[in-house]
This record gives sequence, structure tokens and C-alpha cells, in this order.
Amino acid sequence: MARQERAIRTRKAILAAAAEVFDDVGYEAATISEILKRSGLTKGALYFHFASKEELAQGVLDAQVGGLPAVPAHELHLQMSIDEAVLLARLLQKGTGDPIVQGSMRLTVEQGGPKDLLDRRVPVEGWLVHTTELFEKAKAAGEILPHVDLARVVKVFVAAFTGVQVLSGILTGREDLQERVLDFYSYLMSAIASPAVLARLDFSLQRGEWVYEEAMKQHRAQEDTAAAART
Amino acid sequence: MARQERAIRTRKAILAAAAEVFDDVGYEAATISEILKRSGLTKGALYFHFASKEELAQGVLDAQVGGLPAVPAHELHLQMSIDEAVLLARLLQKGTGDPIVQGSMRLTVEQGGPKDLLDRRVPVEGWLVHTTELFEKAKAAGEILPHVDLARVVKVFVAAFTGVQVLSGILTGREDLQERVLDFYSYLMSAIASPAVLARLDFSLQRGEWVYEEAMKQHRAQEDTAAAART
Repeated sequence: MARQERAIRTRKAILAAAAEVFDDVGYEAATISEILKRSGLTKGALYFHFASKEELAQGVLDAQVGGLPAVPAHELHLQMSIDEAVLLARLLQKGTGDPIVQGSMRLTVEQGGPKDLLDRRVPVEGWLVHTTELFEKAKAAGEILPHVDLARVVKVFVAAFTGVQVLSGILTGREDLQERVLDFYSYLMSAIASPAVLARLDFSLQRGEWVYEEAMKQHRAQEDTAAAART
Repeated sequence: MARQERAIRTRKAILAAAAEVFDDVGYEAATISEILKRSGLTKGALYFHFASKEELAQGVLDAQVGGLPAVPAHELHLQMSIDEAVLLARLLQKGTGDPIVQGSMRLTVEQGGPKDLLDRRVPVEGWLVHTTELFEKAKAAGEILPHVDLARVVKVFVAAFTGVQVLSGILTGREDLQERVLDFYSYLMSAIASPAVLARLDFSLQRGEWVYEEAMKQHRAQEDTAAAART
């Protein structure tokens, strides 16, 4: 394994271990020594990549939006938006999801103390930019009703996802998260999508499971190709 | 002042001080000594009402839903739902809002550690029950489209409010919270309200400010009456 490849893997392993600890106990109670224990790496390796707990947490926050694998292409951009939301919900499942996405979501939602200088706008603005791009394509393709104000509606979508995730966590430990995400998408889509498009959107859990399998397959293939190119 | 009246005021003062501390630093970092300092009360007075930091936090959580003053009566139940949401957004404004509502919201949204046994379902279920009652009246009055599944839509509303609050906090320190709440209400209402009702709903910030003034006036009058009755 080339040096660059090893460094990328080490950095990712540290971020994943840190994200797990942040998700379990929150930023305030997390310690570098617990993160070291989980990662199985040396202090030197960790400090080579991150100078402090704060840098680690910011690294986890910054990796949130990029942590979402691409969903399969679909001719309707609004379907891809639904697919992405359900995929993100799937990655937030405790135990079988993605630790970086989970830890990062907890860090985003927690307000932090006066001494914590984490920039929680990074993931939020990342989702706003990403969703805006997707919805602009949808609007250009006539999928969204002409009067819809994209800047406002995108904020509603990103906010609603965040809240659905918090509530599902409190009420069911996120077990019903995919179902709740599909519910809110079906209500919001009915307010913004053209009727002919709305009738073609698939809000089923079955599609969600298929999207997850496809996205993970594609994601693993891409990671292998990238690793091979670097070695 | 009668003993009962004094006890009620003391309990409320302790909860408000505790809520402020929880809102500033979070549950984990909050200390009883800081709460005592803010309340200006003695240790004895505090421990007479609450045995631990956990009991204090649960008290703040339990007071969340009841902390919302009644909005002025309106013939459309859906207008009252909008009015309540904007009033709650107003009470979440830093500096001029209600400390118990603010501290309680932070405690709700934070996941807590494995050792923290706070029951965050209390406020969430409180909002679900309250919103369900209001929407059931709206449905019985024909304000909501017949096919709408209330159990699902109520969860979407409560979750979306939570998320809008989190996002507005991250992006603007909650300065645009009322505006964002009105946005999401206008999109969700257009998916569930009968067209004739939708056309009559007022989603303006001006109405929100009027509702706040009226609700606070009525709330103060009720508190005075209740206090007079107890003395």
C-alpha cells in the first residue's frame, strides 16, 4: 500500500472512531483517549492528522455531506431527492449505518457550549447547496411548479429532515426513520411537484432498500478503483 | 403571600434558572451550583423541590408544552395551529423569549449520554397529543382534506418544527425562526388544508406579532387571577 493510500485510510479510521465516540456521549464528554482506544491507533498517528478534539469534531462535521454515496441515476430529479433522503435515513440506523454520518448528525444538532467553536454551518450549508442544485435541475426540467421559491423550500426540506431524525430518535431509536422521512417527503412533494410528476414518484420503503443496496455496491466499486489508482 | 403561592413561585424560579443554564452549556456541563447562583435561592430551597440535576432537567422538559400560552380564539383551527407555532418560535428568541421553553428545547434535541436517564419523550408526546387534538377539530370542521392521515401528518408537523428551530439556530441564532416556521407551515398546509380554508389562512409575520402580544396579555391576566385565588 502506498504512503498516500495508507494516510487516507488512517485518517478515515480516526474520523470513524471519533464519530462513534461523539455519537455515544456527545462532544462535551468525548475524550481523545477513548477515541484512541476505539481506533486502535497510536497517539502519534492521531496527532499527525488532528491537533485536538475540536479538530476531530470539525473533521467529522465536514465529512457529513460527502459521506452520502451517490444514488442510482433516475430521469426525475425529485425521485433522486427522495432516494437520497431515504438513503441518508438508512445510514443513520444505529448498528448497521455509517458511524461518520451518525456522529456528525449528533454534533450538528447539539448546540455546544460557549467555549466550543465548532462550525455547525458546514454540514447545514452543504445540504442546502446540494439540495438547491438538485431542485434547480428539477425546476428546469418542469418537475417543480413554477411559483415555488426554491431558496425557501430547500430550507424547509433540510430542516424537516433534521427534525424528523431527532424525533424518530427520541420516539423509536430511529427505527421508523425511513418511514417518517417518506411521509414528510410525500407531503412536501405534493406542495411543490407538478401533478404529472407527483403521480410518478415512488415513496415506497421497498424502493428505499433497493436504492441502499445499489448505492453501496457502486460506492464500494468506486472506493476500490480510487484505491487502486493511488497505489 | 400564602405558603402555597410562595412555593409555586420558588419552583418556577428554580426551573427558569436551571433552564437558562441548560440552554447555555447543555445538560452535561450544567452544575447545581451555577443554577443556584442564577436563581439567587438557597441550596435548601432548591433541594426541597428537586433532588438532583436530573430531576431539574426532567422538570424543565415536563414544563415545555405547558409553557406555551393560549393563542386568541379563531374560527379556523388551522389558523390557531399556525398562531401557536409562530408564538412558540417567538418564545424561542434569545434574550426576549421564555427561558424554560428555550432550555427545554435544547434538552429535548440533545441525545444525552448513556448515564443520562432523561425522558425526552415527555415534551415530544405532549406536542403530538396537543397537535392531534387541534387537527382533529380542524378535520371535524372540514378544514383538512378527507384523505389526510392525521397520525402521520401530526408527526411531520412536530418534527419539522423541531428541525426548523435547529437549523435557524445554526444559521442565524434563531433570528429568522418565525419566518422559517411560516414558510414550512405554508408548504405543509397547502398539502393538507381544503382549498377554501387555505385561501383564508394568514401566514404573515404581522399576525405573528399581534398573536404574541395578545397571548402574553391574556397569560399575565390569568397568572394574576390564579395568584389572587391562591392567596
